[in-house]
Amino acid sequence: MPSAPAYRRLDVDERRRRLLVQGAELFSRHAYADLSMAAIAREAGISKALLYHYFPSKQAFFVATLEQQAAELAARVGDVDPALPPAAQLEAALDAFLGWVEDHAEGYGKLLVGAATHPEVRELVEGVRQQTAERILAGLAPDPAPPAVRAAVRGWLWFMDGVLADWLEHRDLDRDALRGLLLGTLLAAVTAAGAPPSA
Amino acid sequence: MPSAPAYRRLDVDERRRRLLVQGAELFSRHAYADLSMAAIAREAGISKALLYHYFPSKQAFFVATLEQQAAELAARVGDVDPALPPAAQLEAALDAFLGWVEDHAEGYGKLLVGAATHPEVRELVEGVRQQTAERILAGLAPDPAPPAVRAAVRGWLWFMDGVLADWLEHRDLDRDALRGLLLGTLLAAVTAAGAPPSA
Repeated sequence: MPSAPAYRRLDVDERRRRLLVQGAELFSRHAYADLSMAAIAREAGISKALLYHYFPSKQAFFVATLEQQAAELAARVGDVDPALPPAAQLEAALDAFLGWVEDHAEGYGKLLVGAATHPEVRELVEGVRQQTAERILAGLAPDPAPPAVRAAVRGWLWFMDGVLADWLEHRDLDRDALRGLLLGTLLAAVTAAGAPPSA
Repeated sequence: MPSAPAYRRLDVDERRRRLLVQGAELFSRHAYADLSMAAIAREAGISKALLYHYFPSKQAFFVATLEQQAAELAARVGDVDPALPPAAQLEAALDAFLGWVEDHAEGYGKLLVGAATHPEVRELVEGVRQQTAERILAGLAPDPAPPAVRAAVRGWLWFMDGVLADWLEHRDLDRDALRGLLLGTLLAAVTAAGAPPSA
């Protein structure tokens, strides 16, 4: 019966995925310290024992919700027509990212100001920044990129999070203005680094 | 005897100041988790009881060392001729900041990648960014600043930390190149905030 284990596996994956979606929502609404595994299980309508079966600890569950969101983000940002010129690909990817941030505003805001208390979360954020930097550099500069260009792109990813932290706090900029500020600054930073973009 | 308490107070302040200088050096050389109050007292050549007399906990001591460094940084960055035009003041302040980062490279690097696990440290970093943003905005924009300009300056302070994190990791840019990248990007970000390319 080759198909039975596959079905069961899918079930398990699907239940895990649903728990992660519920968890992401819970962690975005509540402070990490205020959520217990018991409360999470109650909200999910399952036993605490079953929750522990999927995730060994609250921290492991939290990190798994972020990994799931990072994967979703990567899928949305990566869904860009590779036939477009680099500048247009960048703009489309940035727009997808801003849409994702709007959909996950609460959680992303929490992540920016507080959730980096967990080393695993810092590693995850740093990993996403690193991958994004590499993708951007691939479209802008030779490999390996000159040090100043590498520093400019890495700094710009921090810039983006700083601008988003400000935006999530004040909410007084629309998406066009945000995108213009972010794109304009990236191109200017790369130019200031001494490598005019090859758009 | 009005002068006796004043003298004693000065002694206490001076001893506290020296402990903070030693502490800053210890925290920059060792991981926070690896340092104990006993080890700190030993390095400072005082009893653990006396160390606890000055600082109630390792965390309080750590935060105090950072506050002391932030005050030193503010003094150096603030020591700029107010008669200079705004752009020249900014360049001088940035140069003073980069000099301070070079002098405190180990500790600043640790702060950027890890020390923000403590809420007090995040507040301190955010407070310094806020003050710096206000000083920069005062020289660049009307009060209150337009939202996009405020977001650009706040984002740029994150940019600077991202570039410095990159620089502290790779050390392959000289101070002139760093300053050019940082200043060029600030001016460009503020320009992008005033006239987004999409507008």
